[in-house]
Amino acid sequence: MGKKVCVFLVLVSILVLAIDAITVDRLNIWPMPKLVSHGEHRTLYVSKDFGLKTEGSKYNDASGILKDGFSRLLDVIRVAHVVDANFSGIDTSVLLQGLHVVVLTADDELRYGIDESYKLSVPDSGKPVYAHLEAQTIYGALHGLQTFSQLCYFNFTLEVIQVPRVPWTVIDKPRFSYRGLLIDTSRHYLPLPVIKKVIDSMTYAKLNVLHWHIVDTQSFPLEIPSYPKLWDGAYSISERYTFVDAAEIVSYAQRRGINVLAEIDVPGHARSWGIGYPSLWPSKNCQQPLDVSNEFTFKVIDGILSDFSKVFKFRFVHLGGDEVDTSCWISTPRLRKWLGGGVAQKVVASGLRCIVSNQDKWYLDHLDDTWQQFYMNEPLTNITNPKQQELVIGGEVCMWGEHIDGSDIEQTIWPRAAAAAERLWTPYDKLAKDPRKVTGRLAHFRCLLNQRGVAAAPVAGPGRVAPEEPGSCYSQ
Amino acid sequence: MGKKVCVFLVLVSILVLAIDAITVDRLNIWPMPKLVSHGEHRTLYVSKDFGLKTEGSKYNDASGILKDGFSRLLDVIRVAHVVDANFSGIDTSVLLQGLHVVVLTADDELRYGIDESYKLSVPDSGKPVYAHLEAQTIYGALHGLQTFSQLCYFNFTLEVIQVPRVPWTVIDKPRFSYRGLLIDTSRHYLPLPVIKKVIDSMTYAKLNVLHWHIVDTQSFPLEIPSYPKLWDGAYSISERYTFVDAAEIVSYAQRRGINVLAEIDVPGHARSWGIGYPSLWPSKNCQQPLDVSNEFTFKVIDGILSDFSKVFKFRFVHLGGDEVDTSCWISTPRLRKWLGGGVAQKVVASGLRCIVSNQDKWYLDHLDDTWQQFYMNEPLTNITNPKQQELVIGGEVCMWGEHIDGSDIEQTIWPRAAAAAERLWTPYDKLAKDPRKVTGRLAHFRCLLNQRGVAAAPVAGPGRVAPEEPGSCYSQ
Repeated sequence: MGKKVCVFLVLVSILVLAIDAITVDRLNIWPMPKLVSHGEHRTLYVSKDFGLKTEGSKYNDASGILKDGFSRLLDVIRVAHVVDANFSGIDTSVLLQGLHVVVLTADDELRYGIDESYKLSVPDSGKPVYAHLEAQTIYGALHGLQTFSQLCYFNFTLEVIQVPRVPWTVIDKPRFSYRGLLIDTSRHYLPLPVIKKVIDSMTYAKLNVLHWHIVDTQSFPLEIPSYPKLWDGAYSISERYTFVDAAEIVSYAQRRGINVLAEIDVPGHARSWGIGYPSLWPSKNCQQPLDVSNEFTFKVIDGILSDFSKVFKFRFVHLGGDEVDTSCWISTPRLRKWLGGGVAQKVVASGLRCIVSNQDKWYLDHLDDTWQQFYMNEPLTNITNPKQQELVIGGEVCMWGEHIDGSDIEQTIWPRAAAAAERLWTPYDKLAKDPRKVTGRLAHFRCLLNQRGVAAAPVAGPGRVAPEEPGSCYSQ
Repeated sequence: MGKKVCVFLVLVSILVLAIDAITVDRLNIWPMPKLVSHGEHRTLYVSKDFGLKTEGSKYNDASGILKDGFSRLLDVIRVAHVVDANFSGIDTSVLLQGLHVVVLTADDELRYGIDESYKLSVPDSGKPVYAHLEAQTIYGALHGLQTFSQLCYFNFTLEVIQVPRVPWTVIDKPRFSYRGLLIDTSRHYLPLPVIKKVIDSMTYAKLNVLHWHIVDTQSFPLEIPSYPKLWDGAYSISERYTFVDAAEIVSYAQRRGINVLAEIDVPGHARSWGIGYPSLWPSKNCQQPLDVSNEFTFKVIDGILSDFSKVFKFRFVHLGGDEVDTSCWISTPRLRKWLGGGVAQKVVASGLRCIVSNQDKWYLDHLDDTWQQFYMNEPLTNITNPKQQELVIGGEVCMWGEHIDGSDIEQTIWPRAAAAAERLWTPYDKLAKDPRKVTGRLAHFRCLLNQRGVAAAPVAGPGRVAPEEPGSCYSQ
C-alpha cells in the first residue's frame, strides 16, 4: 500500500499547483453569464461598511426584498472566514465602498416570464468606488447579487474580502424562463428548514422554479382546509405541513425570485387520499387510481385547487397524470366501461407548453447519472422548427424522494443540478461542447456551496458519492 | 413488484399508528436525564412573547451567553412550523409566559470538569405560569435549555408550541465530564460553517468537547504565526484557516458549553509540515515521521504550542503519538541510533488520564458499525477498581476524515454519535441493557435533528445509509 500512497501524494502536489491557479486566475462564475469582461492586475477590497445605495431606482423596496437580498449577499461573502482586516492600512482608492443598485420597474410581482436580466459592473477606480448593478426587475437584481458574490474571494494575507481583476462588466440574462427543481414530500417528509435550505441553494445556481410534488401514493402531508381529513394520509402527526407552512414556503421562495409550482398528481399516485376519504378509492381492495366515476373525486380535486389558489400564486399547477396503473379501473366493472386510453396524449393535446425533464438524463434519484450527463442534456435536441423551439419554455431536474430525506437530499441534488442549471441559463453558444472544459469551474462551484454550508457532493463520480480519497475539495 | 408494494403499505399503516403514540406518549428526551417526572393530562402553550427572566441569578450574563442560548432555544422550538395561533383565544392559565433561569455562579469560564448539572421544572399552574431552570453554572443552564426544547411540540390544531404532560421535573447531571467528538480537517478541509453546524448539533446531544484533529500527513490547513510557512502544506490557498478563524471556532464552541481540544499529531502523521519546512523531514525521499534528531523540529513544536496557548484555552492539548511508521527512522542511519521503541507506553506512563475511544466501537468512519454498537460500548468495561474507574474521565467518538467532507459529515456523525452521547451522559443504571428499548426514542431524536436542519441519517442500518424505502422518519 505504501507505494500507492506515495503516488497519490505526488498527484496531490500537482493538483495543489493547479488549484491555486484555478482559484485566482480562472473565470469561476457558475452558471456562466452571457457576457463577461474583466481586467487582469487590479484588485479592490470590500470595505468594512460595504453598503447598499439605491438612488435612481424606481423600485422602493417596501417589502424589503432587496434589503434582505443584500444582507444575504454580505452573509455569503463573509461566511467562510473571519474578516479581521485593519482597514485603516488600506488606501481608500482601492476600497469598494458599496453596491449601487438601480431597478427600473416598481412592481415586484414574480410573474412567469418576468425579465431576469441584469448588468453588473465593478470599476477599477472612483471617488468613492462603488459597484453598479442595473436590472429591469428586482428579480434580475437578485441574480446580479449572486454573480457579484462569486467575484468575491477571501484574501488570507490582509484578512479581507477582495474582488480581483477589476474592472468587471457582466451582461446577463437567462436562455430559458423556466429553470426548475422538483422535490417530493410524499415518499419522505422534508422538514421546513430543509426545504428552505434547498431554496437558498437554488438561488446560488439561478434556478427559478421549485416544483413541489406534494402528495403521492405513500403520504398526504399537506393540510387542505376544504377537506380536512386529507392529511390523515400523512405518515405521522409530526410529518405534516399546515396551510400556513405552505404559504411560508411560497413566500420564502418568492422573496428569493423562485416560484413554487404546486403539484397534486392525479389520477394515479394518489392512494394516500383515501386514508381520510375511502370513497376516493375504487374499492377498499383496489385503492388506485382515484375513482374517476365518483363525483366526489372531482369535488375534492376542485376543493384542493381552490385552496391552492389562495397560497400558490404561480400561474402553473401540475396535475401529474403520469404512471397511471389502470388495473384497478379495469378490474372494477363500472369503471372499465368508462375508461379509455391515452392519458399522456390528452395532456399533450391540451396545448400545454413543454418543460423538459427526461428521466434518463435529469432525474437526480438516478445515482448512476453523472453531472456530465446532466450538463450535456440539451432541451432542444432534435427540435429544429423555431415555433416548436419556442414551446420549450425550459426544463427541470427531479429529486424523487424514495431514498431521499433530510439526511441526504443536498448531496443528491448538488452539484448535478448545477450542471443542468448552466444548460438552462447560459446562451447555447457559450456552453461547453465537452464537459471536461467546465470540470474545474464546476468543482469550484461545489466547493463554494460547501463553504456556504450546502452539502454538495464531490464532482468526481456519479450522484451522492463520498470522497474517494483524502484530498482537496477542488480536485474531487 | 405489486405484491411487495402492498405488503409494504400495510406495514406503513401499522407504523403510523405506532408513531402517533411515540410522538405524544413516550418520554422522548435524548440523552435520558438522571431523573424525570411528569404529569399526564395537562398541557401548557408557549406564549407568543415567551420570555427570559433572571431574577435571583448570580450570573450577570455580560457576555450574552445566556441571552444567545435562549434565543437559539426559541429558534429551534419554532423552526419546524409557522406559529400562527390566535393567542387571544387561549386561556392565560394555560399559557407558559416564559422561563425563569437562576445561575448560582457568577463566573463563566469553561473549565474542564465544571459543574454541568441543572434542575428544570415546568409547573402546571401559576399566575403567571413560568418554567424554572436552576444551575450551578451557565453551562449547566445551557443543558437545561436543550432539555426544555425537547419537551416542546408543535400543536397542529392550534398552530402553537405546546408542552404536554405538565408538571415536569428534571434533575440532571452528566455521568462523565469529557464527552467528545473528533473532527479531522487534514484529510478533508471542513469549511467554517460546517464546523459551526457540527458544534450546534453537538449541543443537542449534550456533548462538550470538540477534539479538533487539525493537521495530518495530507494537509496542514492552519495558520501558525510563529512558523508562517507551515500552512504551505494546505491543499490549496482556499482550504486554510487563519489564526482568527481558529479563535472564532473556539469562541463559538465555548459560548455553547463546548471546549475545543486542539491536536497536532506528532511525530507520525506529519508529512505535510515539511512542505513549508523540508528540514522537518528525515530526508526528501523519506518524509515521515518528523526528524526527531533535529533541534528545529522541537522548536517548531514549541512554536505551535506557544501559538496554540493564545487561542485554545482548554487545559488539554492532544499530541497524537499514534501509528508512527518508524521505517524512515530506521532507514536513516543517524536516527536509527537514537531511536528506541515504546512510544505508546511512554504516553501512558506519563500519567495522563484516560479518554475512551476504541476504534472497533466508536470510530464513525467505520460505516459498518451500527448505532447499537455505539450505544453498548461501555467505557468502564473490565475496569472494576474504583480508583482506576475515576481515571476514565469520559470518551469520544471519532469522525476521521478520509471519506468525509462538507458533503457527508453530518449523516456520518448522526445519529450514531448520539448513541454514544447517551452512554456518556446518562447514569449507568438508567441506560438500556438492550438497545431495542431505545430505538423509538433515538429515531425521534434523529427526526428532531432533521427538523432542525441537521442531516442525521436513518436509524435503520449502519452508518450513513440512505432511507431504504419511502416511509416515515420515525420508522427508518
